[in-house]
Amino acid sequence: MSMFDKPILVFQTDFTYAEGAVSSMYGVVKTVDRELEIFDGTHQIPQYDTWSASYRLYQSLQFWPKGTIYVSVVDPGVGTRRRACVAKTVDGYYVVTPDNGALTHVKKYIGIEAVREIDESVNRLQSTRGVAIFHGRDLFGYTAARLASGIIDFEGVGPEYPVEEIVEHPIYEPDVREGCVKGYFEINDPNFGNLWTNIPLEAFQSAGFHYGDMVNVSICHDGTEVFRQRVLFHQSFGFAQKGDPMIYNNELMKVAMAVSQGSMCKKYGLNFGPEWTVVFTK
Amino acid sequence: MSMFDKPILVFQTDFTYAEGAVSSMYGVVKTVDRELEIFDGTHQIPQYDTWSASYRLYQSLQFWPKGTIYVSVVDPGVGTRRRACVAKTVDGYYVVTPDNGALTHVKKYIGIEAVREIDESVNRLQSTRGVAIFHGRDLFGYTAARLASGIIDFEGVGPEYPVEEIVEHPIYEPDVREGCVKGYFEINDPNFGNLWTNIPLEAFQSAGFHYGDMVNVSICHDGTEVFRQRVLFHQSFGFAQKGDPMIYNNELMKVAMAVSQGSMCKKYGLNFGPEWTVVFTK
Amino acid sequence: MSMFDKPILVFQTDFTYAEGAVSSMYGVVKTVDRELEIFDGTHQIPQYDTWSASYRLYQSLQFWPKGTIYVSVVDPGVGTRRRACVAKTVDGYYVVTPDNGALTHVKKYIGIEAVREIDESVNRLQSTRGVAIFHGRDLFGYTAARLASGIIDFEGVGPEYPVEEIVEHPIYEPDVREGCVKGYFEINDPNFGNLWTNIPLEAFQSAGFHYGDMVNVSICHDGTEVFRQRVLFHQSFGFAQKGDPMIYNNELMKVAMAVSQGSMCKKYGLNFGPEWTVVFTK
Repeated sequence: MSMFDKPILVFQTDFTYAEGAVSSMYGVVKTVDRELEIFDGTHQIPQYDTWSASYRLYQSLQFWPKGTIYVSVVDPGVGTRRRACVAKTVDGYYVVTPDNGALTHVKKYIGIEAVREIDESVNRLQSTRGVAIFHGRDLFGYTAARLASGIIDFEGVGPEYPVEEIVEHPIYEPDVREGCVKGYFEINDPNFGNLWTNIPLEAFQSAGFHYGDMVNVSICHDGTEVFRQRVLFHQSFGFAQKGDPMIYNNELMKVAMAVSQGSMCKKYGLNFGPEWTVVFTK
Repeated sequence: MSMFDKPILVFQTDFTYAEGAVSSMYGVVKTVDRELEIFDGTHQIPQYDTWSASYRLYQSLQFWPKGTIYVSVVDPGVGTRRRACVAKTVDGYYVVTPDNGALTHVKKYIGIEAVREIDESVNRLQSTRGVAIFHGRDLFGYTAARLASGIIDFEGVGPEYPVEEIVEHPIYEPDVREGCVKGYFEINDPNFGNLWTNIPLEAFQSAGFHYGDMVNVSICHDGTEVFRQRVLFHQSFGFAQKGDPMIYNNELMKVAMAVSQGSMCKKYGLNFGPEWTVVFTK
Repeated sequence: MSMFDKPILVFQTDFTYAEGAVSSMYGVVKTVDRELEIFDGTHQIPQYDTWSASYRLYQSLQFWPKGTIYVSVVDPGVGTRRRACVAKTVDGYYVVTPDNGALTHVKKYIGIEAVREIDESVNRLQSTRGVAIFHGRDLFGYTAARLASGIIDFEGVGPEYPVEEIVEHPIYEPDVREGCVKGYFEINDPNFGNLWTNIPLEAFQSAGFHYGDMVNVSICHDGTEVFRQRVLFHQSFGFAQKGDPMIYNNELMKVAMAVSQGSMCKKYGLNFGPEWTVVFTK
């Protein structure tokens, strides 16, 4: 069996790389099986933010080879009764995560075939018994490594439970009508300061908006309008003047807003979440 | 010989990943031997902080496979007379580092079997002769790669010197009595803002403290009390109310303090070092 | 064919690791060919700064094994008419990048043998057609993976165009006379706050400056003097007093300035760019 017969492990956490936690976690993986390949998804998920964990999984998982095992450790309930699980998607990926909302988008947009609760009596690093606060190292990373290595199969993770019991965050659908689309900012690009809506490009275009159009945009925070402008809708940032806001089609084929070579979030004091609604009209 | 017969290289530095330094260093390793595996420990050790370098080595080294070569480059004395060395631990790991205090914890808690000074006349990248300020690339990374590759063995590093000559920081022991334990914060978790004491869980429990207890905590900075509260001691953060301070058992089986889903450091203006003492009483 | 017959891929971008973009990009690479090795150059190039992208390429590329494919994605013009290209250096490396100035230093100091424009009709991820804003994932990473994998050869990238047409930033040469050298700060070390001039060590020494000398330094910003001191020139930081400014020979054999265990940029409010000139006199 070649190293390439074993799935890749990708990790996302809210640990950052500031100290030794990621290193310890990866060391455990390589101690289970030296041949396993490990990649950083990101270690900068906002702290305890299981919504962002869910979104980042959905954003990236599909671009990895089928069979990839994605480990997500954003775990405000570590050491308490929340379930630790491995989910198998309908298209053949595995997600190892606390069952705390982090599977929301993968379940809805990709589909989960089955989910199993990690049996700690088998799939837990023995040398650190007594430690209850670092399941990334002691439980999730260790179990993912055993699964990738073939030491256990999916059944070996632990008992199956109904997919319906998976903890989910609410997902809101946009309101799409001819010439008027209402949605909200469901996530941001924290680096460039772009804001991504829940509106699919296809719906937006079907409502009559086309590349090159100037569009009326109204953004509200908790119902109070905080932004109103006429804004260009186009394919990419370079079509707008540097410093101007614009509407574009993001990397997941959803409508998003940016400031060309600037930050939409910072320039206008905006953020994401259900309380940040946006209305586009012709 | 397979690539997996060669030890893994793990790097920790205070370089950050902000520019090309890490890339250049890793490029040198792969130029020595394409087959070598490289992992990031962390590149965010606080600048020039050889104590933190030492602690992070101790924190993570033990979780990697035996034989792993850990390269630590926090090097305020680069280009001056401090020794550059490779230490071999009693349990079969190698640490490549300036001998400037970074071996303190590994020496005390794991044990160093032998240490050798890197012979620059042999184990130095030749193409960059004339550069005195980047030993991570030109000396430590290069030597570690040669050692991992088998081009040199441990003897080939350079002359051995007495383990007793290794530069060490002072380590202070806690004062443990029935119902009263005194220690200090020896390091933090910079991401979550937790503070880790020098008190082993076992000693704490033997002094009569148990999970579920409320404990009197007094924290002093240079002898002046800056925190006094009755605080829950429990296994994990989720047992405390969000925003409340708590005492828990950290990932290295030592007593630590956190704010549940918050930052102990920021909320109470605390930090680590011998001047930050803490007393726990029943 | 072994995995080690395929070149290494190194990536530098201005994406940061804050969300899922790097993960998605790397996933595409591994989906093209599971055997490819990927390294982070840096993902913290200042946003839209094609000068820094160019400098970091020059700084690190040469330390990787010959044949390495360096992917640089700092792309303010993504989705507009700027060329996407692969350049082949005279010494056998490949650089995959938007042709927007990022090849400036590699062209001047290493040499480019040939350059080809990426043919999007062939070398573009098909599943994300319709997305115009993420060429790191959809075009550059994908093409680099195909090239590394051997699916295409250099000719298969797309049509060749004249090396003379490569977009370049101006590079200014220092003015070197006996006892007086004028240059500017062309880049910084953003972590340690050092400033790197455009003056080669050799020229500086030939003008009569030697390790151990005290040197008069005048720094101007847009012609206004902002720093004037007599400063030590030596091999490494440890020769100066902690907190003092100094002149040293940097990792690329150019004259640079630092504050010993401090930040030259922060302590004196300095930065880099053609407007930041520096004069050294005896």
